[in-house]
Amino acid sequence: MRPPLFEAVPNFSEGRDEEKIARIVAPVRAVPGVRVLGLHSDPDHNRSVLTFAGEEEAVLQAAGTLAQVCASEIDLASQTGEHPRMGSLDVLPFVPLEGATLEDAARLARQAGERIAALGFAVYLYEAAATASHRRNLAVVRRGGYEGLAARMGDPLWKPDYGPPQLDPSRGAVAVGARPFLVAFNAYLDTDDVEVARAVARRVRERDGGLPGVKALGLEVGGRAQVSMNLTDLDRTPIPVALEAVRSAASEHGASVESTELVGLAPLEAILQVARHYLELRELEREHVLEVRLWDAQ
Amino acid sequence: MRPPLFEAVPNFSEGRDEEKIARIVAPVRAVPGVRVLGLHSDPDHNRSVLTFAGEEEAVLQAAGTLAQVCASEIDLASQTGEHPRMGSLDVLPFVPLEGATLEDAARLARQAGERIAALGFAVYLYEAAATASHRRNLAVVRRGGYEGLAARMGDPLWKPDYGPPQLDPSRGAVAVGARPFLVAFNAYLDTDDVEVARAVARRVRERDGGLPGVKALGLEVGGRAQVSMNLTDLDRTPIPVALEAVRSAASEHGASVESTELVGLAPLEAILQVARHYLELRELEREHVLEVRLWDAQ
Repeated sequence: MRPPLFEAVPNFSEGRDEEKIARIVAPVRAVPGVRVLGLHSDPDHNRSVLTFAGEEEAVLQAAGTLAQVCASEIDLASQTGEHPRMGSLDVLPFVPLEGATLEDAARLARQAGERIAALGFAVYLYEAAATASHRRNLAVVRRGGYEGLAARMGDPLWKPDYGPPQLDPSRGAVAVGARPFLVAFNAYLDTDDVEVARAVARRVRERDGGLPGVKALGLEVGGRAQVSMNLTDLDRTPIPVALEAVRSAASEHGASVESTELVGLAPLEAILQVARHYLELRELEREHVLEVRLWDAQ
Repeated sequence: MRPPLFEAVPNFSEGRDEEKIARIVAPVRAVPGVRVLGLHSDPDHNRSVLTFAGEEEAVLQAAGTLAQVCASEIDLASQTGEHPRMGSLDVLPFVPLEGATLEDAARLARQAGERIAALGFAVYLYEAAATASHRRNLAVVRRGGYEGLAARMGDPLWKPDYGPPQLDPSRGAVAVGARPFLVAFNAYLDTDDVEVARAVARRVRERDGGLPGVKALGLEVGGRAQVSMNLTDLDRTPIPVALEAVRSAASEHGASVESTELVGLAPLEAILQVARHYLELRELEREHVLEVRLWDAQ
């Protein structure tokens, strides 16, 4: 039995100064047992998104290290950018991977929140880690950015979960949360009519009575109507079920799916679900994949 | 770039004495860098099949270690069993995995053959490692077992590739070869008429003008007609192509595929091929699988 794995996807408020970004990421990379999976910096938003993974203790330690280096490298008071940032370390979601549950990730978020508050950040827990329903939605928590939060944090409804009752101008506030792993799956239709994609999106998304855990939008991408989906509950709505629903809804408008794309990473289980579905396989588990056996034997 | 990986699937002539089997396998398991993926012992045939994998040097060393311990633990002269065995270490195929070619595996087979011959085994190279076309087929090489080989090895056509010109009665001969990775994929039809499965097998297998790299038989399994396939060239005939061919051939007999099964291990690439086909994915590489990223980052 391998220990549970977690992913963290912190956003920090520096996306322009490459040397500074390197100084911020290096100590995270140096934490034993932490594997950095991605780093994306956006100069316009002056913001970077780092993805790393590992076992519980390694991920917690890396999160604390990142908060510390953000506090020393980034002065939020002198920082500018288009994004409505709240803190030098701005958002820190934990995501359950192999062997971990969303509740495990929420527990990690609370532990990380306490540690980070001790460094002078005001900490707001969100999504699965939220302590009140009005704080679950990240967009609501960070409404108005630093200034908006500074104005309302005297209200008992917006007291931080951990940390100082007023914002430190250099550090600010950070939203620490837990959310499920998302698979970003897009279907391109054989039409340029974005209204068809919008109608299909409404049919398949949970919000409008569609499939559990599916968020969907209709977009126009490269001259093609695209149904852009986030699948947040692969146990209840695996990729092939989402695809068949899109195919069926599209056909009502005389359209069909021309191609699809997976954006970012997909867990192996999501791919196995596709193979099981299409091949009508009696059984297919991760242990049947050669590379998994090589990997697990390490 | 990770170094190429190889699998070896040696068969040795002991399948009854569990303690002896454990003594034979332990030193293989102890070779650094070797991962044992499976061990199957058959008391009737008095024979065991071991599967292990690793990088070139580790696999070579493990093969030599296995030959050595087979020579000391197994006396072929006193060994009995239903299987027409030739040697205490009997068959030793090398299989290319990630990053390796069949030619690489054939080179490994020749190197292993030389090492094993130095321990007193007569070595016959077969399949992709064979030095003459009449020795490619393993069934032909081992025809008549130890006794058959002893009778014909004076014939220049049957001189061993390496090792003594006469068989050592305790060690005997070993067939060392190289073969591609096989995916064993079976399709169950919605009929109990085995003739339909046989007709479908003839339509899809390479031998009768069907798909490249496909071997197929029609069988009756659990009251259902089964098309039992070995896919030996997944680049040219991936699983979905074989399945669509079976579906199409079955429909000519009014039958359809009810379910399928993968027997043993399948490489990740074979599963990705299925997902690409069914989802009409624009792109899906192993780097898009979360676990591969975690694994490669180790």
